[in-house]
Amino acid sequence: MYSSPPALEKLVQEFSKLPSIGRKTARRLAFHLISGDREKMEHLATALMEAKTKLIRCARCYGFSEEEVCQICASPGRDREVLCVVERASDILPFENSGVHKGLYFVLGGVLSPLDGIKPETLHIPELMERIERENVKELILALGSSPEAESTALYIDRILANSAIHRTRLARGIPVGSDLDFIDDVTMLRAFEERVKL
Amino acid sequence: MYSSPPALEKLVQEFSKLPSIGRKTARRLAFHLISGDREKMEHLATALMEAKTKLIRCARCYGFSEEEVCQICASPGRDREVLCVVERASDILPFENSGVHKGLYFVLGGVLSPLDGIKPETLHIPELMERIERENVKELILALGSSPEAESTALYIDRILANSAIHRTRLARGIPVGSDLDFIDDVTMLRAFEERVKL
Repeated sequence: MYSSPPALEKLVQEFSKLPSIGRKTARRLAFHLISGDREKMEHLATALMEAKTKLIRCARCYGFSEEEVCQICASPGRDREVLCVVERASDILPFENSGVHKGLYFVLGGVLSPLDGIKPETLHIPELMERIERENVKELILALGSSPEAESTALYIDRILANSAIHRTRLARGIPVGSDLDFIDDVTMLRAFEERVKL
Repeated sequence: MYSSPPALEKLVQEFSKLPSIGRKTARRLAFHLISGDREKMEHLATALMEAKTKLIRCARCYGFSEEEVCQICASPGRDREVLCVVERASDILPFENSGVHKGLYFVLGGVLSPLDGIKPETLHIPELMERIERENVKELILALGSSPEAESTALYIDRILANSAIHRTRLARGIPVGSDLDFIDDVTMLRAFEERVKL
């Protein structure tokens, strides 16, 4: 039985471990890299090693940063009274790209899922509560997903703060701008209808 | 304007350079790697560097190998009289996986395309001719693609060998096994019809 040279096979294997990269795509990537300018392979390897060593979690928001405190948390121009709570560090980007949020972020690190052993202490929920107590947070935007786990995580945090004066909000749900009604799923339609607003 | 930490941005950029990896996928891959077990990043980086340094072109067939002569060319069990000519090194794999070809391979390195400056000397066509002259090749299977360039490359090689006793063949064209006739494109249908065989 034929097998590719070990170094090639290993590269295909490592690529296959990445999400959404199947064996065929992995093979295509590997052949692309070894057939073309090989310096590219070194650039990718260097980028991987640099990301591995340089990127740490921001001590305040748990987003990614190369400094102890990230660019956003360190910025004097941000509104420190509004805190947007997201599930993962990658969720910060769409907010920043749209430029809509002038406040700070807090990365939970996941959503509650007792069956998978993900309890409040597994996430950064205690740290979130400490931060709210310590700092002058006036509004908490719970920008978690719409899975049952995400919704119950938002509800859990909302309940802890039931007796506080902090304004708790979540993002509006509805029809995406520019979307054709034909393509809207039933649950989104239900939410958009229930949460319809006065013209 | 917000920008991700440089090390993260660099990793996303390097991933985006890969074929079929857009910016969104690149970002997803980068976040997957930095959020999970970071050893994986080192494994991928190591695999890239090893592939970069270890993989060379086989001196006989121009496929990839870690030795001067690849596993297939070095195997005493292969039929040295049948030579299968392919465009790229990655084209060897489907033959080997099906186990259908017992002979050897020869990687051309591309197909003729005078407008892009790809002439016979740019490819390994002179080396192919030398090899045929030097060795006892009885059948040459021209397993190139079906683009106009690939077809004219096969024709070009066929013409050079017009006065030789070497049997020149190409792969059969037709309906893929298990394919629904509904999904067959017009050109394939035309070929399959023209090259129909007696039952």
